[in-house]
Amino acid sequence: MTHAHRLAAVRRTMAEYDINAFIVPHDDEHLGEYIPPYAERLDWVTGFSGSAGVAVILADTAAMFVDGRYTVQVRQQCDNTLFSYHHLIDEPYLNWLITELNAGDKVGFDAHLHSQHWYQGAQEKLAAHNITLVPIAHNIIDQHWQDRPTPNSHPALLLSQDYSGQHSEAKRNRIAQGLAEQHIDAQLLTQAEPINWLLNIRGRDIDCLPVVLSFALLYQDGSVQLFADPAKFAGLDLAAHAGDNVSLFAVCEFEKHLQMLGTQKSRVQLDPTTANAWSALTLSEAGAELVFAADPCMLPKACKNQVEVNGSRSAHLRDGAAVCRFLSWLDKRLSQPHPEQEHEGTLADKLESFRASHPEFVEPSFSTISALGPNAAMCHYHHLNGTPRTLGQDAIYLVDSGGQYLDGTTDITRTVAVGEPDAEIKKLFTLVLRGHIDLAQARFPAGTAGQQLDALARMPLWQQGYNFDHGTGHGVGHYLSVHEGPQRISPKGSMVPLTSGMIVSNEPGYYREQGFGIRCENLQVVQAAHLDGDIPVFEFETLTFVPFDRRLIDENWLENKHIQWLNQYHRQVWEKISPLLEGDDLAWLEQATRPL
Amino acid sequence: MTHAHRLAAVRRTMAEYDINAFIVPHDDEHLGEYIPPYAERLDWVTGFSGSAGVAVILADTAAMFVDGRYTVQVRQQCDNTLFSYHHLIDEPYLNWLITELNAGDKVGFDAHLHSQHWYQGAQEKLAAHNITLVPIAHNIIDQHWQDRPTPNSHPALLLSQDYSGQHSEAKRNRIAQGLAEQHIDAQLLTQAEPINWLLNIRGRDIDCLPVVLSFALLYQDGSVQLFADPAKFAGLDLAAHAGDNVSLFAVCEFEKHLQMLGTQKSRVQLDPTTANAWSALTLSEAGAELVFAADPCMLPKACKNQVEVNGSRSAHLRDGAAVCRFLSWLDKRLSQPHPEQEHEGTLADKLESFRASHPEFVEPSFSTISALGPNAAMCHYHHLNGTPRTLGQDAIYLVDSGGQYLDGTTDITRTVAVGEPDAEIKKLFTLVLRGHIDLAQARFPAGTAGQQLDALARMPLWQQGYNFDHGTGHGVGHYLSVHEGPQRISPKGSMVPLTSGMIVSNEPGYYREQGFGIRCENLQVVQAAHLDGDIPVFEFETLTFVPFDRRLIDENWLENKHIQWLNQYHRQVWEKISPLLEGDDLAWLEQATRPL
Repeated sequence: MTHAHRLAAVRRTMAEYDINAFIVPHDDEHLGEYIPPYAERLDWVTGFSGSAGVAVILADTAAMFVDGRYTVQVRQQCDNTLFSYHHLIDEPYLNWLITELNAGDKVGFDAHLHSQHWYQGAQEKLAAHNITLVPIAHNIIDQHWQDRPTPNSHPALLLSQDYSGQHSEAKRNRIAQGLAEQHIDAQLLTQAEPINWLLNIRGRDIDCLPVVLSFALLYQDGSVQLFADPAKFAGLDLAAHAGDNVSLFAVCEFEKHLQMLGTQKSRVQLDPTTANAWSALTLSEAGAELVFAADPCMLPKACKNQVEVNGSRSAHLRDGAAVCRFLSWLDKRLSQPHPEQEHEGTLADKLESFRASHPEFVEPSFSTISALGPNAAMCHYHHLNGTPRTLGQDAIYLVDSGGQYLDGTTDITRTVAVGEPDAEIKKLFTLVLRGHIDLAQARFPAGTAGQQLDALARMPLWQQGYNFDHGTGHGVGHYLSVHEGPQRISPKGSMVPLTSGMIVSNEPGYYREQGFGIRCENLQVVQAAHLDGDIPVFEFETLTFVPFDRRLIDENWLENKHIQWLNQYHRQVWEKISPLLEGDDLAWLEQATRPL
Repeated sequence: MTHAHRLAAVRRTMAEYDINAFIVPHDDEHLGEYIPPYAERLDWVTGFSGSAGVAVILADTAAMFVDGRYTVQVRQQCDNTLFSYHHLIDEPYLNWLITELNAGDKVGFDAHLHSQHWYQGAQEKLAAHNITLVPIAHNIIDQHWQDRPTPNSHPALLLSQDYSGQHSEAKRNRIAQGLAEQHIDAQLLTQAEPINWLLNIRGRDIDCLPVVLSFALLYQDGSVQLFADPAKFAGLDLAAHAGDNVSLFAVCEFEKHLQMLGTQKSRVQLDPTTANAWSALTLSEAGAELVFAADPCMLPKACKNQVEVNGSRSAHLRDGAAVCRFLSWLDKRLSQPHPEQEHEGTLADKLESFRASHPEFVEPSFSTISALGPNAAMCHYHHLNGTPRTLGQDAIYLVDSGGQYLDGTTDITRTVAVGEPDAEIKKLFTLVLRGHIDLAQARFPAGTAGQQLDALARMPLWQQGYNFDHGTGHGVGHYLSVHEGPQRISPKGSMVPLTSGMIVSNEPGYYREQGFGIRCENLQVVQAAHLDGDIPVFEFETLTFVPFDRRLIDENWLENKHIQWLNQYHRQVWEKISPLLEGDDLAWLEQATRPL
């Protein structure tokens, strides 16, 4: 079935339903960052495989909306005789709909796939033009998707307290107490990460994100109803693991429980930015009182306990050794005949093979960015989307990768010399590294948000008239998503204070279009500093231990304090990683960590 | 009439009006930072003379709400048999009212003295408890205030384009064009500074703030109706100065014009955070459509034109020479017999006398903070509120002062040795100065807000476990208010980007309660930097030229780049200020500016 046929099928059903437009977002019903193959509805109807985008289908026309990352890809993947292309941010699709439709028209959407926040805003915006949003109970794509993949059957994992550091009951009671104080009867949880954290469970439902996809209701008494595929828990004693008051239901029971909450006139709290509109509609139509607030699991999940921090430290040593072995191998390979036989793909595979040699390794924490020369200037480059570059053509190589281990999640970027870097590359690498060091050395009082620290990492670049167009740091989970909130280090956005146990990346970069890309990324955990001043302050403890490439450093762009930091960091790398290496790799590490 | 009598009189009228409470804020109808004596209603009824606070009067009880600055002063000034004391922030007075009143009760307030924003919020909050807000047309205080001061009769000044740099017509047309684009018929202006800026007028209606208090309506065609005391413009040709389409009306005509806008069903824009609720009520009750948005004068006023920047540069040289003469005199005075004959008051007067010797000097830009030893630890200390300390008791002296000149407004703080500062004082002074220098050296791309740079000035203190509890920098007007928005350098608040021509202070500090206070403050103007990088960036040009006290610097707490900045700054001070000094003062400057 071609995309033209698929589009025609969707349009036939739209006509039957008497709707003038149908919206197909990329998201699934959990509204998380990643979706499983069976939720790739946007790809099915348009051919677009990117991680964000929306299609809007009208009777005679259809449009694709993607952000700046995907303006090239959408043209490659979506037939321009079927779809017009638009910028998701600059030309919001609701605005486009308003210009295309007439007063009295109806727009169909699947309320499972949109947040309550979106629904409220969209409804208001369209109503001003006398256009109505109509929830479609059975998604039109699903009605026509014949060969739709089935959800995988990976069993769930009950995560031992040796890894989680806190029993589910303690987590649930703490959050339930907050609900009781605000007279909330139940908290609706719809995202996978907070549910998996709360119950100390993990899964393999999505690549790179070790979760069981599920919904949950957390009640004021601390009890939880989990709605997930029961087959995944076959043979597992969830109640013995997570607590007697945790009960498992099939996902198809979820609607009934929402309706029961309504019948009981319950006050139900949900996060309107992450909960889907269908849950909110189901609850309120059944009579529940909705309370909108941030998901109360997010902050305690972000503040890792001592066991989680220790686990992350261990995972990072293991991960650091794997990356060092890869970098050692890479240097050797460059000196051997025919380095051009290696390309970005073989390099990524080689790196993964070193990680996979550790028994605690589960899977990559995201799809490795392995980028030579100009490819590294595309922040979301992937070597499978074109012809990968080979060794020998370029001066520098950027590799951004990470692992999911049972005791922690890693994420590291190193930029290394694979040719003859010129003075300008060295200058820019050194400025990026300097910003990384300035942020790594920050101390700050309670109440300080990442937004207030972001400029530290950029200032060395700003001083010379350069910048980079992405955030400086994201939160990282504990054997969970490599991207998590609410903490963030970026110019705008989250004002959530950084506090003890939060793990954040520190990853300034520099990107020269058609030229090269540089990024220096470590993970660091927020800890109390012990000083003699007036007030308690926090500092960052670095978790990642892999050398920064000394061959790319121009000391003229550093001050003494940066060189001291770097020498001390490399001494630590040597002390922590050398016991895990041997032979050539050990010799490589010794020269890579000698003082400047 | 005692405050007890005054309170009794107010309560009699409250009973006549059948209201259960009456709110008396500090603000006047312009809701600016400063108010004239005739608007000191809060002082009249409570005895409290601070610059911020609210009294709430009930039939049997009354309460004073002040912020942390005034918790001591309110106890000294307000009779505790008449008023209970509360913290304005921690215990909001609306919350207190809700606990004191019953459903069905009525709260009187003067809608002239509250913002539209406050009114909407308060109305909603009280309505939830079935309590009604009742606007009182004729303020109850005014009905009983027999010896109320009359407004002063200082004539207005028509500010020459040699100072303003842009004709009123150009300013008005630019803003009117924005109104037309948004189909706004008229912009309501109620704060003094934007009106005086827009019409290139100044006055002396309030100490330290050179404005004519007034209201104005700016129409889509660029015409303005100014509502002010016509006597202040006697003999002045406002139309010839500001434009034929600028017309002057007595303030008593203002209500009628608002009502006319209503009759015409006009769309009127106002800033709900600065426009009083009375104007908004008058407009909407008459039939106008209200549009809420930030005052469109604020941003262009904040971005000084080249003439204003040049004027500020000149004002700062003059002001710097005056401060240098004062510091030179102070050092000499300390070496002469009986320095204890000088106290904080005589020092402040001496400093003002040096400023006043310049013909362009109009008045101080705020009440000088002249604080010795522990008094400097109180950020809002004033020597008239107690017994001023004398020279000879303390190691260091903090003086924060500024001048209004026809060509610019200044604001400078220097902390200087007047005794034997110990190592800890030197360490903390040096950390404060280091933060000042780090912020002064910042460069940043378009779109960067002060909030993103604030941490630069605090990081040296944070590194050692210290902080200061005020913003790092405020906007400064051009021969206008020494405090202006929308730009700001502080941990929270304004995300308005810093851009060319904005003047901001750079004033980190450190305060040791019962010990000492340190602050290092220069003004700086945002300018384009000229670099070879990828993107345009801004940098700060320092406007203030007065030495920092070398005797307080411990070089161990500085890096090379700070010493280089300081030596270069002192060289500039010498070059710019030495031509304005002679004799002992010149010799003083030479030793004060020699390199570290």
